[in-house]
Amino acid sequence: MRTGGGLITSAERPVPSPSAGEVLVRVKASSLNARDLLIVTGRYSVDVPPGRIPLSDGAGVVEAVGDGVSRFRVGDRVAGTFHPTWLYGPFPEWGQLRGTHRDGWLTEYIALDEQSAVAVPDHLTFEEAATLPCAALTAWSAVSGVGPGDALLVQGSGGVSVFALQLARLAGARVLATTSSDDKARRLSALGASDVVDYTSTPEWGARVRALTDGGADRVVEIGGAGTLSQSIDAVAHGGQIALVGNLAAGDGMDVNRFFRRAATLRSISVGSRGDFERMNKVIAQNRLRSVIDRVFPFDQAPEAFAHFEKGPRFGKVVISH
Amino acid sequence: MRTGGGLITSAERPVPSPSAGEVLVRVKASSLNARDLLIVTGRYSVDVPPGRIPLSDGAGVVEAVGDGVSRFRVGDRVAGTFHPTWLYGPFPEWGQLRGTHRDGWLTEYIALDEQSAVAVPDHLTFEEAATLPCAALTAWSAVSGVGPGDALLVQGSGGVSVFALQLARLAGARVLATTSSDDKARRLSALGASDVVDYTSTPEWGARVRALTDGGADRVVEIGGAGTLSQSIDAVAHGGQIALVGNLAAGDGMDVNRFFRRAATLRSISVGSRGDFERMNKVIAQNRLRSVIDRVFPFDQAPEAFAHFEKGPRFGKVVISH
Amino acid sequence: MRTGGGLITSAERPVPSPSAGEVLVRVKASSLNARDLLIVTGRYSVDVPPGRIPLSDGAGVVEAVGDGVSRFRVGDRVAGTFHPTWLYGPFPEWGQLRGTHRDGWLTEYIALDEQSAVAVPDHLTFEEAATLPCAALTAWSAVSGVGPGDALLVQGSGGVSVFALQLARLAGARVLATTSSDDKARRLSALGASDVVDYTSTPEWGARVRALTDGGADRVVEIGGAGTLSQSIDAVAHGGQIALVGNLAAGDGMDVNRFFRRAATLRSISVGSRGDFERMNKVIAQNRLRSVIDRVFPFDQAPEAFAHFEKGPRFGKVVISH
Amino acid sequence: MRTGGGLITSAERPVPSPSAGEVLVRVKASSLNARDLLIVTGRYSVDVPPGRIPLSDGAGVVEAVGDGVSRFRVGDRVAGTFHPTWLYGPFPEWGQLRGTHRDGWLTEYIALDEQSAVAVPDHLTFEEAATLPCAALTAWSAVSGVGPGDALLVQGSGGVSVFALQLARLAGARVLATTSSDDKARRLSALGASDVVDYTSTPEWGARVRALTDGGADRVVEIGGAGTLSQSIDAVAHGGQIALVGNLAAGDGMDVNRFFRRAATLRSISVGSRGDFERMNKVIAQNRLRSVIDRVFPFDQAPEAFAHFEKGPRFGKVVISH
Repeated sequence: MRTGGGLITSAERPVPSPSAGEVLVRVKASSLNARDLLIVTGRYSVDVPPGRIPLSDGAGVVEAVGDGVSRFRVGDRVAGTFHPTWLYGPFPEWGQLRGTHRDGWLTEYIALDEQSAVAVPDHLTFEEAATLPCAALTAWSAVSGVGPGDALLVQGSGGVSVFALQLARLAGARVLATTSSDDKARRLSALGASDVVDYTSTPEWGARVRALTDGGADRVVEIGGAGTLSQSIDAVAHGGQIALVGNLAAGDGMDVNRFFRRAATLRSISVGSRGDFERMNKVIAQNRLRSVIDRVFPFDQAPEAFAHFEKGPRFGKVVISH
Repeated sequence: MRTGGGLITSAERPVPSPSAGEVLVRVKASSLNARDLLIVTGRYSVDVPPGRIPLSDGAGVVEAVGDGVSRFRVGDRVAGTFHPTWLYGPFPEWGQLRGTHRDGWLTEYIALDEQSAVAVPDHLTFEEAATLPCAALTAWSAVSGVGPGDALLVQGSGGVSVFALQLARLAGARVLATTSSDDKARRLSALGASDVVDYTSTPEWGARVRALTDGGADRVVEIGGAGTLSQSIDAVAHGGQIALVGNLAAGDGMDVNRFFRRAATLRSISVGSRGDFERMNKVIAQNRLRSVIDRVFPFDQAPEAFAHFEKGPRFGKVVISH
Repeated sequence: MRTGGGLITSAERPVPSPSAGEVLVRVKASSLNARDLLIVTGRYSVDVPPGRIPLSDGAGVVEAVGDGVSRFRVGDRVAGTFHPTWLYGPFPEWGQLRGTHRDGWLTEYIALDEQSAVAVPDHLTFEEAATLPCAALTAWSAVSGVGPGDALLVQGSGGVSVFALQLARLAGARVLATTSSDDKARRLSALGASDVVDYTSTPEWGARVRALTDGGADRVVEIGGAGTLSQSIDAVAHGGQIALVGNLAAGDGMDVNRFFRRAATLRSISVGSRGDFERMNKVIAQNRLRSVIDRVFPFDQAPEAFAHFEKGPRFGKVVISH
Repeated sequence: MRTGGGLITSAERPVPSPSAGEVLVRVKASSLNARDLLIVTGRYSVDVPPGRIPLSDGAGVVEAVGDGVSRFRVGDRVAGTFHPTWLYGPFPEWGQLRGTHRDGWLTEYIALDEQSAVAVPDHLTFEEAATLPCAALTAWSAVSGVGPGDALLVQGSGGVSVFALQLARLAGARVLATTSSDDKARRLSALGASDVVDYTSTPEWGARVRALTDGGADRVVEIGGAGTLSQSIDAVAHGGQIALVGNLAAGDGMDVNRFFRRAATLRSISVGSRGDFERMNKVIAQNRLRSVIDRVFPFDQAPEAFAHFEKGPRFGKVVISH
């Protein structure tokens, strides 16, 4: 089978056979996350062995099942889970992740422990399903608990932010967003954002969000981390929560006193468990929610997909069709 | 001032003066609930002294404030709370309720402890605001915690059921309803019900709801009590909850074994606290939700309002304009 | 291997081989629950095929593992889960239970899907560990959420009640108990009960509990069901919860109106998930809690164990040592 | 009456009269917190007018009540609340605090809005009751939700840390503590700490706590803030929570990436609401918990009390008897 190997070189490997308890998945689509870009460009915090197949996220069809498999049958449409062994309960610890510790989804076939796969909603294409494991589930965890009466702020229009906007709207929350272009602002509004703040023309966007929400956002989905946290602390309401899903923008350490006086909570989001994924899928299915896909690249253009992911502009998810 | 006195006779009484800590409210509208009907027809479980002014629910304008009042100013638009002393936390106990232990809202003026009043959303008329204290807050408490991915069942189209439908839809839940007429079915659908089951033609509506929801409703808002609980147990999902808000329909005791095997929860709803009311008002205001009013009667036609309330058909709340 | 077969006759069967994903357990101890007694005496609500090996609960040592097993190794000490496929989340539905739909633990060897087994705390004997899957976990679920400041009532001194007393005391709750003998009262007090009410001399024990707790118990662990629920409704505090774990005592249907006015919640307990079991085991291990065992019978005296279980008097769990 | 005025000079002022809705309290005891020390030494972040009476915390007897008071009667034993207008629900915003925006408790008489006072447990002396409003309630909020199976870390033996230790032990949690002396270590152990780590000899106490707890503390009560947060991030378990109650030790900003990888939550604690205070008092009363008092100073030695508070060593609360 063809795979996208170390730093996005392609390779030929034998198709794996499913061991006992495993399913063999014919991969139909995969998707890119910020972590994948760090990995393939050699900037990730964990050493990645040469030849490691990239991408944590993907979806496909079960083509064969190993002995003792009970969760799936041949023909089932599945996605993998980001944390292969986190089934339920609170976050346990960082484990054997795909794209780093194990081969990932940029390949034609993948063998998975049946416990680390979930069925995907019927109404989604494989390209859409491939966006769920990391980006959608991270957004799901970040917005958990918000509802009507709450105001939520998303930063920009990357995969997690757009899913957070969609999922928070499903739950009845008001959603505000930051962005840097009028075009993106229009698209964010079309997805249900009540207000969009241009962070280029309004560098003090935290104060602006606070004014728009009469005291601050109840929840902020923090993508930038150290580089944007200072504005997020301004934006969040007294007693509100900043859901820290990424740390993409360089910056100084967080001002502890300023955070303390805001009476806020800062919660690290580590994607989510399989149980969370299944619950999210039920909600996506019931509401027939569609993933927002920025662009789909063919398998042979994986390097171009990464280049586009890095340079943008993007709105939603970058997907590879296999 | 004019009041609707014992069993809806009218009376003349002096306008009260607000004591320290009290606000004097010029009543603009009041609304009827099932409990009020039992009271004025002498069927209520608690003895009601002759001449007691009826109605637990109403709204108006603060016309004067007593010494030490800090929560309100003259001119504020307010409603009363159903449980005058339940400010927050879990339900304490049945206290001095209006319409029974104390005079109620069918009057031109009422003096309230400022702690037992709340500001009402700006976008609501007084007629709409008068429907909030018992019916809307009961519905709010009954649907608390439901969200996208959940299915909720309401029975009929009385005040609580319609508010429950509206509030659950705001929170992203799927809502099913029972009814007995095509006209009401159309109106329930227009408010967002995904499915309406006619309980006349489908007396086994519990099984029908279960089939429609692939296993049962996650939440049932139980109005009938003993008379409908058996069907509600059929309708509710394993692990679901029946929110018991009324006990209007005669019936036998609940079959404990059948309930047990359903693995369900039965939760009595006692309206809600002032804190709950305030949170609900924030949600109503943010989403500009409007009360569904069946019919408005002038103050002089309070007896007709009660007659209509009893005989129906109704859809939503019956209100008296003062 | 020897097994306790249909209605506690013994039988000889071949030792099973573990399939892929299964562990073969050398059973060291099993324990009896009320459900098991109904099954072996032909009074259970579900048809049980002849020759079905009884007992839902047991513990032992992993003697062999099938292909693909990753959760356990040979030599591990494990117990089975009551609901073999309920791993996490809310209760799904009644499934293939042991002792009815599948063979149970009254046998020398049992083959289990590795997903339906849990490791048991190191400090427990196998006899103690065998008491966990149904009785302890039911108690755990029934007392979940109680803490310092809460008062909890247990009925009698069967397995679930004693575990509920122990677990609620660990969590800092005050515990009251009903009983029918001075000897049991002394033992309940020794385990930490603050008050014990004799239900023989005080048939209106609900009112007594309410007086002792200044308004009622925040939680009642309901064992008797229809036969005792009326008293439990008297005993529970406004806003409190009755955790319905059994339905052992005959009685009429529940008075819905009386329940409603108590503003209480009635929650059916269906044992618990594997995730719940694991969390409970962590708590048992950290606090070195020991199971209270009434009496241990040798494997050959399983019929005598059932006879003793039925006739009592008992205090805690009846166990069979294999 | 005598008061401790600006920067602890004494003054004579007239005894206030209670307005409508107010109670006049004869102050019996007051207690010191870190915030009070900053205030009287001119290091507080908010400007404090000259002559402002210090101390946010105190307890006494209701000596007179204004018109319309319904919560208290003459002779009731009460304490004030730290946030005078935060009755319930999530933290609203910083308001008119005592010792800064309003006169505090270092005085013979104080007039309070009845809504900003709570009854104190009968078994406590006034000296003990005076320690509750800020320190005990902060600890209560910081440990909320912990129970059996959880491990909690407290830093040192100041008022909040000792209350957190006591309250977490009541709830069945394991408690670890840091300290700098053998004597304090002994006292912490006597109060129920399972392990005490000397932070002088073990500057990397975070790693030590993690080893002792097999993965980290589920909850850390963070007193030092910027100066100790780095070690607390090491000490906390994956998925655990750091409850930020103070920011006493100088230090750099928090390393956001390190925090993120720990998958932890950082929650600012702003003392608590009146509802929280009342619930805590119920728990304290039911368990007859006693405050740990380091030393009691007479009213005339308030300056000495502050000097002792600053220089230590202390273990528990510093109290002034009026």
